[in-house]
Amino acid sequence: MKAANYLGDRSMGVGDSPVIPPVKGEVRLDVAYCGVCGTDMHIFHGHMDQRVPMPMTIGHEVSATVVELGEGVDGVAVGDRVSVRPLLFGEASDFDKGYSHVGKNLKIIGIDMAGGMQASWTVPAYTLHALPEGMSLEQGAMIEPAAVACHDVRLGEVKAGETCVVIGGGPIGLLIALVAKEKGASVVLSEVNDARLELARSLGLVGVNPIRDDLVDSIRELTNGRMADCAFEVSGSAAGVEVMTELLNVRGRIVMVAIHPDPKPVNLFKFFWSELKLIGARLYEKEDFDEAIQLAASGCLHLDTLITRVDPIENVQQTFETIEANPDGIKYLIDCRA
Amino acid sequence: MKAANYLGDRSMGVGDSPVIPPVKGEVRLDVAYCGVCGTDMHIFHGHMDQRVPMPMTIGHEVSATVVELGEGVDGVAVGDRVSVRPLLFGEASDFDKGYSHVGKNLKIIGIDMAGGMQASWTVPAYTLHALPEGMSLEQGAMIEPAAVACHDVRLGEVKAGETCVVIGGGPIGLLIALVAKEKGASVVLSEVNDARLELARSLGLVGVNPIRDDLVDSIRELTNGRMADCAFEVSGSAAGVEVMTELLNVRGRIVMVAIHPDPKPVNLFKFFWSELKLIGARLYEKEDFDEAIQLAASGCLHLDTLITRVDPIENVQQTFETIEANPDGIKYLIDCRA
Repeated sequence: MKAANYLGDRSMGVGDSPVIPPVKGEVRLDVAYCGVCGTDMHIFHGHMDQRVPMPMTIGHEVSATVVELGEGVDGVAVGDRVSVRPLLFGEASDFDKGYSHVGKNLKIIGIDMAGGMQASWTVPAYTLHALPEGMSLEQGAMIEPAAVACHDVRLGEVKAGETCVVIGGGPIGLLIALVAKEKGASVVLSEVNDARLELARSLGLVGVNPIRDDLVDSIRELTNGRMADCAFEVSGSAAGVEVMTELLNVRGRIVMVAIHPDPKPVNLFKFFWSELKLIGARLYEKEDFDEAIQLAASGCLHLDTLITRVDPIENVQQTFETIEANPDGIKYLIDCRA
Repeated sequence: MKAANYLGDRSMGVGDSPVIPPVKGEVRLDVAYCGVCGTDMHIFHGHMDQRVPMPMTIGHEVSATVVELGEGVDGVAVGDRVSVRPLLFGEASDFDKGYSHVGKNLKIIGIDMAGGMQASWTVPAYTLHALPEGMSLEQGAMIEPAAVACHDVRLGEVKAGETCVVIGGGPIGLLIALVAKEKGASVVLSEVNDARLELARSLGLVGVNPIRDDLVDSIRELTNGRMADCAFEVSGSAAGVEVMTELLNVRGRIVMVAIHPDPKPVNLFKFFWSELKLIGARLYEKEDFDEAIQLAASGCLHLDTLITRVDPIENVQQTFETIEANPDGIKYLIDCRA
């Protein structure tokens, strides 16, 4: 039974996955697949060494089968195929105003404590979302990032008939674009990598490479001057922050999805002038997982197409190095069935 | 009949106020008082010479009496005492999405065309809001800035029991604070000028001088660590933009009221982390004038206290120079009754 552990300094090792009997309210899972997230890459690069203990089993995009129930668990049965919403809420505080998914005492399983990149994993039962019949376990490992996208689109209040621009076409950007399209919006994806852009186009999205074509001009043309109603900044780039305010019409919304570690210059005048809104969005709430599962089951998220490759857990170091070296790829899954 | 005209280069001159007979849909007003706005000071300083023709009668914070009706005007009678909502909407465009007060073809009377700092003024009848009995014409000249404050608080979705921080205690900041207080919020005003702070305290607001006391620490103490639910950036300062994201709890809102001509560094990470919202707010809609008049009539805006001085129109140059030289003052009115 194997576990993929972050050892520090761009190094992932394969260790033992301990079988931890579930206590009250917990379940034990046999993990099937665990996706590699941008956050996992941040951990790999050492950017989160202050937060992540070492060595630690990382991973939080998991599909699994329930194999053992702790005391008092109901609504879950051995054999259930599940996705995991990897949040431990801790004690509620006044500061949180009930938004426990971004609360003061939130811990993320797979970042702040042992995650799902291992064969056997024990988690609280409330984190589980059942996968519907007909959904593969590979697809099930994509529910967590799809829930991020559902959360972002929900907070962006995207409505049918609107035009959305997604800045950045990695896994989250593509999923946001597909969720917004499913809501009835016209979606333009801005991405500098042509392979990703090609993939986006094959999924029915309009793609713009902002290095080749001016993004503001492109949106103006595509909308006959009306401009976009909602933009998603998923690129994490200064260029993305610079352009985001220029894409929108009056009362346009910008959803801030990307992590910008340092303050960046923002055109605040434009916020005032056109009454724009900037909406921070992080993680997901329960309903976003429910919606992600429903959309994934409908096929509109094209999850099989977004999965670039599935690697065995033994090769985890190589997988992380491949992701680093190959910006064309979208989502890499680790096969944890040891 | 006199008019106060911007002549360019920090110079205000007194000229003739032409009596323009109202055409269809217009009314002619005898102006009583016209407040001097921050925008008028920008014009005076030459910062808007690209936009403002010269010489031009400026001013857009007006109280007046109706003296003549054009054809087809109803709902207004000669002798009515009014405030003026100085917006010309022009042709609607798709870009505006119905928000004509910030639409593409919006013109502001008193900036883009002759304003109210004159004895006789002819405007579209739809711009008028009747002043209630018992409201003085001095108070009536404060309705326009009060409507700005009502708009800002409305877009900030301030609710009873919340804590608000207003960064900047000029006329608009003070009015925002008083409107938010009337909504049942606890309001803290951050202002570097002690005279203004003293005035704020005399109106029942909690005042903090951020030069003397750390604003973030002050809000933490005042809220027992809960932090604020809504902040209004009215200072236009880099320090205001730097601190605004640090004052708020989860899903906190920031209303961008100030004009920041150049992009400023914003802590976008904080938006992501705590799901903050930034809301641009400009001018007002009809309902904001209605609310401003209602609140002003109730006395809760303390308009008489906010009026620092009333000067005759002949002294307009001196008034503008006084405003420049005296950061302790709040609102100066020009008496236009020649």
